[in-house]
Amino acid sequence: MSREPWVEGIDIGGTTIKAALVDYGGEVRALESTSSNVENLPSFKRSFGGLLAKLGKKVLPGARLAAAGIGCKGVVDTGTSRIRILPGQFAFLEGLRLDRLISDALGFSLPVSADNDAKTALVGEQRWGAARGKQHVVLLTLGSGVGGAFLSAGAMVRGCSEIAGHLGHVTVDFQGPLCSCGNRGCLEAVFSARAIEGDAVASIRRGCESPLRAKFAANPESLTCLDVFTAAASGDPMARGIVERAVAALAAAMAGMAHALDPELFILGGQIAEAGPTLFGPLRKDFYGRTLRLVGRRIPIRKAALGESAGVLGAAASAWKVLESDSLRFLAPSRLRGERSARRIHR
Amino acid sequence: MSREPWVEGIDIGGTTIKAALVDYGGEVRALESTSSNVENLPSFKRSFGGLLAKLGKKVLPGARLAAAGIGCKGVVDTGTSRIRILPGQFAFLEGLRLDRLISDALGFSLPVSADNDAKTALVGEQRWGAARGKQHVVLLTLGSGVGGAFLSAGAMVRGCSEIAGHLGHVTVDFQGPLCSCGNRGCLEAVFSARAIEGDAVASIRRGCESPLRAKFAANPESLTCLDVFTAAASGDPMARGIVERAVAALAAAMAGMAHALDPELFILGGQIAEAGPTLFGPLRKDFYGRTLRLVGRRIPIRKAALGESAGVLGAAASAWKVLESDSLRFLAPSRLRGERSARRIHR
Repeated sequence: MSREPWVEGIDIGGTTIKAALVDYGGEVRALESTSSNVENLPSFKRSFGGLLAKLGKKVLPGARLAAAGIGCKGVVDTGTSRIRILPGQFAFLEGLRLDRLISDALGFSLPVSADNDAKTALVGEQRWGAARGKQHVVLLTLGSGVGGAFLSAGAMVRGCSEIAGHLGHVTVDFQGPLCSCGNRGCLEAVFSARAIEGDAVASIRRGCESPLRAKFAANPESLTCLDVFTAAASGDPMARGIVERAVAALAAAMAGMAHALDPELFILGGQIAEAGPTLFGPLRKDFYGRTLRLVGRRIPIRKAALGESAGVLGAAASAWKVLESDSLRFLAPSRLRGERSARRIHR
Repeated sequence: MSREPWVEGIDIGGTTIKAALVDYGGEVRALESTSSNVENLPSFKRSFGGLLAKLGKKVLPGARLAAAGIGCKGVVDTGTSRIRILPGQFAFLEGLRLDRLISDALGFSLPVSADNDAKTALVGEQRWGAARGKQHVVLLTLGSGVGGAFLSAGAMVRGCSEIAGHLGHVTVDFQGPLCSCGNRGCLEAVFSARAIEGDAVASIRRGCESPLRAKFAANPESLTCLDVFTAAASGDPMARGIVERAVAALAAAMAGMAHALDPELFILGGQIAEAGPTLFGPLRKDFYGRTLRLVGRRIPIRKAALGESAGVLGAAASAWKVLESDSLRFLAPSRLRGERSARRIHR
């Protein structure tokens, strides 16, 4: 008798690497995590192997691992699961095949689905979250950087080399600040945790007055984006100036996406989306001011529904998708066989 | 015996309305045009009727009209051929069904394909021009305004309400000049014939020195975008400043599209694309500077191949596409019939 299938959802994030066992209904049956703070490939592999080993022990006797899904920053070749482009923290992963990373860690091989983490997040929202039943959806992950993904007519738009969906790198200020990608004035260079924190530290250094100044005088590097949002909400003019400008950039980028992509819905995920009404209130006001005339309707802007587990759930949803398309592939010939034998009987 | 089928391609442009008879190979067999300078719906219908009547007389005895295609600014509902949103010059066409406009003008009805003019232009380039054989293509029409359309995995991206592809309204300057659409700092508000002309007139009014100043002192409104490009090419600092800034905005908008859509190819059409190397040289330099790092390759930027007839050829290509999908629909049942009778024979 076949046991209940589970999949493994793995999220390689900037702070932690998480892995979860997820069932067909999207229930997280077990979760493990480890710090992302590793310097090179060998220590990454050790820590990744330890994580999957710990999780593997939690597979119950009545269940079996059917597949694994993995989401990672950068450009992932979904055909081979190879990480093609990944600048920054995890640059040592460039060229690595994620399916082999997983089978090496597990000691056996499984069907593996690997993709950019914003794309897996959208697959998760499409299967179990805010995008259920929607065909045209834009998702933005607002974190230390800004990731993105979008569905057009129900399908993930990937472009000709899987770079499509890098919505953190649409330009919102063509003469603006240099971005880590080499472009100027990317959304991420104006609206992201790193950009907002940088703006606050630079404003303090320029001598602007703010309660944040005394608080972080000794250690300005410990100031976080959340501190800036909190100070803005409590009326600090410097923090308000920074947040208002960043939110205007996000509203403007989303207005451009509305005109270019015409989605039914925007979904915002990531740590900054946790700012809640402080973000969503002014964002909606500015965004509708920019789009109502041409779009002619208020496109809903919703918070991602899968919350803290969005990363592992998205990766798990991608794994389920691969399993389903595999079983379709297996079904097809048997169905044909079925037809043929039926015809024989008929004769 | 069936005569050679032709289609009618119609382009409702800001300066002229053009109509052509086009054969299956994309050859223009006859072309007529009339001024767009009409004030209201009755005079538009008169002038449109006259145009189609003149063209109708040119259908040779060996040919027959099989369909009509029509391209128009704004948002066109492709299911019903109704113009949904069309601000500005032709606002009186809002709500009009283009298939009825055509059958009223012809006195008989034909299969009609109606679409936004940038989308028909891309269908034309896909069938007979620079996008042949390509699956992921972005087209921009650089004229008095900026239009756009793009193919993802071979299909036109339309969004959930046919607004997708309004690439002239992606934001490039989130705190920038107000656009006719209500957004701020749209590409079209910085790079378009109207924006460039406006910049030149405003610079002259502010007292900037330029040979354009004396030339257009008496009638600043007669200054054209081409005059600004020509002055820039001959070294006029004011004109160069205006053109460099506008080209940087275009390069930045295209960089954002490269990161969001990952096309194989950009195609630039419209009157400003005629500026040739004066535009394409600095544009490519700025664009590759903004995209090489993340995209990792030089996405080609080509001029539209269909030139002056792009409008009518694009509309004609859309009509051929509809005819083909119609004949597929008609073919399908007959093929099924064919299969069934073959089986019967086999028995």
